[in-house]
Amino acid sequence: MEKLIVDTSSREYPVYIGEGLLHQSADLLAPVLEGKTKALVISDSNTAPLYAETVRTALEPLLPVHLHTLPAGEQSKSLEEYEQVMTACIHAGLDRHSVILALGGGMIGDLAGFAAATYMRGISFVQVPTTLLAQDSSVGGKTGINHPLGKNLIGAFHQPEAVLYDTDTLSSLPDKEWRSGFAEMIKHAFIKDSNLLSRLRTEVQSTEDMKKESLKQFLRQSMTVKADIVKEDERETGVRAFLNYGHTLGHAMEKASGYNNLTHGEAVAAGMIFAMKLSNYLQYSNWDIAYETAWFTALGYPVEAASAFEPAALVETMKNDKKARAGELTFVLASAPERPFLAKVKERDILHLLLEMKKGGS
Amino acid sequence: MEKLIVDTSSREYPVYIGEGLLHQSADLLAPVLEGKTKALVISDSNTAPLYAETVRTALEPLLPVHLHTLPAGEQSKSLEEYEQVMTACIHAGLDRHSVILALGGGMIGDLAGFAAATYMRGISFVQVPTTLLAQDSSVGGKTGINHPLGKNLIGAFHQPEAVLYDTDTLSSLPDKEWRSGFAEMIKHAFIKDSNLLSRLRTEVQSTEDMKKESLKQFLRQSMTVKADIVKEDERETGVRAFLNYGHTLGHAMEKASGYNNLTHGEAVAAGMIFAMKLSNYLQYSNWDIAYETAWFTALGYPVEAASAFEPAALVETMKNDKKARAGELTFVLASAPERPFLAKVKERDILHLLLEMKKGGS
Repeated sequence: MEKLIVDTSSREYPVYIGEGLLHQSADLLAPVLEGKTKALVISDSNTAPLYAETVRTALEPLLPVHLHTLPAGEQSKSLEEYEQVMTACIHAGLDRHSVILALGGGMIGDLAGFAAATYMRGISFVQVPTTLLAQDSSVGGKTGINHPLGKNLIGAFHQPEAVLYDTDTLSSLPDKEWRSGFAEMIKHAFIKDSNLLSRLRTEVQSTEDMKKESLKQFLRQSMTVKADIVKEDERETGVRAFLNYGHTLGHAMEKASGYNNLTHGEAVAAGMIFAMKLSNYLQYSNWDIAYETAWFTALGYPVEAASAFEPAALVETMKNDKKARAGELTFVLASAPERPFLAKVKERDILHLLLEMKKGGS
Repeated sequence: MEKLIVDTSSREYPVYIGEGLLHQSADLLAPVLEGKTKALVISDSNTAPLYAETVRTALEPLLPVHLHTLPAGEQSKSLEEYEQVMTACIHAGLDRHSVILALGGGMIGDLAGFAAATYMRGISFVQVPTTLLAQDSSVGGKTGINHPLGKNLIGAFHQPEAVLYDTDTLSSLPDKEWRSGFAEMIKHAFIKDSNLLSRLRTEVQSTEDMKKESLKQFLRQSMTVKADIVKEDERETGVRAFLNYGHTLGHAMEKASGYNNLTHGEAVAAGMIFAMKLSNYLQYSNWDIAYETAWFTALGYPVEAASAFEPAALVETMKNDKKARAGELTFVLASAPERPFLAKVKERDILHLLLEMKKGGS
């Protein structure tokens, strides 16, 4: 088992990474659960049948455990499902000394975390991620739900009291989900860990390679990047914004696709390639686009996905992004690995590049 | 103009109390509004026609000002209106550097504050209370909305950046609202300011007396009690719980009445008399119930209001209160003025007293 500590201004908490951890959850979570009155496991219709009973059986000697299951899929990150979760909290009799366990992927972690942040003005929660993507979202305390007009527009910062990452749960993931999560790992490598980036380039040349034994080391390195950045800037007033590398266009594409056909990581991967092109175009850098595109394509990422959408509509969505300020477009760009920076970018430059991609010209 | 500073672990902010402050809002709020991109004034259908234009006219030289109005009344403190508010934030183009102004009573402050706490994971807000009740709720950072199953079950701690309290706005309040707000002032006096309590007993013997010139001094003393307690315990892990004096039964009665016939302060006033009876019954104290009841009755409070409801139903609601822990009933009691304490109380003792009141026996 690997362990790291996330140390933020509001809370310090452990992240456990390893095989079979769900079975050890009573031991690992004992410090968190001490003195708690009840636990509510929040999970989705894909995950609950696989793991909820394991968690319940492990924890029930310590405290009463309830379960609330909601439909799998990003569509559930809605105000409607949020209200259902709050109702479940009340029906389960949770009080201020209860704890919510988020058992699932990023959708569950974000929604259950937001429920924990706002039930009775905030109760404890534990992240139990079961997807590769959730290695990123389970650390750092960003919680939230989607508004019909934009992703993650409703939310709060609320740190978990522990993250329990049982890598055995990843075995049930389809390839699409492996790629989705791996994109955030690549992103962490690009913005803050050249050593990890070199290892990934060398050792991972296909989706199958992502599942190798070395995954656990990669996970630890990747989550350490996240933890370091969150430690420095919990509320995203500075360096934490770099974690949005690839996300400005990525979010806009996800919205344009109806949060359906494109996974988050696929959109982010395409967004990273776009950020490199943009950075080159604005003469901040000299990325070898052909080289990067070849690697991303070998890994199965749809790097040209943006060309399926209307450029003007993508730009409009980006202007409504949380990272925007008064309608200005702000991008995370990078001049080289480990050299990210924030740049205000003109609408016309983005439109120009998007139109070129649409014409197949870039 | 009176001024006090609220100093919490998360933020320090000024409270301004005085006449004509809405007209001076540009000057008083200039430090808060500096660097902000936009302002959204959130108000209700009673308050907006009276004061929204004054605020807009005052602030528009500083930044663009939008207005969102929702129906007056506690019923608007709902998830449905919350969603409308979030939509209004998006339509107004608010970003992370925008500010929400809550112009209205406690309902507006709580809802707009919760919107500010959760829009893009938290933006700035300013309380502009226009009721006497809001002297209490506008300080301390408790924000939230109601769930169909309970009051304030959804919410967050989020401190405003300033409180602007124009006492001219109180002139439009009906007597029922004066009484509602005054109950919280009496509560502050009971739990932490015997000097204020003596002055109130001497100078205020009717609803008309509440409107006297000395109100501003009372307000300052009352809000200082609140600020002192919040400073000591922002997250309600200790002494802040004393502010719930009268609220456990009060909330249950409000719920039983459908948040309609009984104002918050009326319910709290009845709850305080009940807390005194309970404290006497459990032999913690020797309150002169007849004396206290006579004063409360002269001020117009329905001290026997609980007798209109089913005792068992009130107890059931109290067990679901946020302050409850694992279904135990916890009350704030007081052995004397300035001597509040928390007590676990047996269900049967509460039922006994409620049944006595129903029979007219107490």
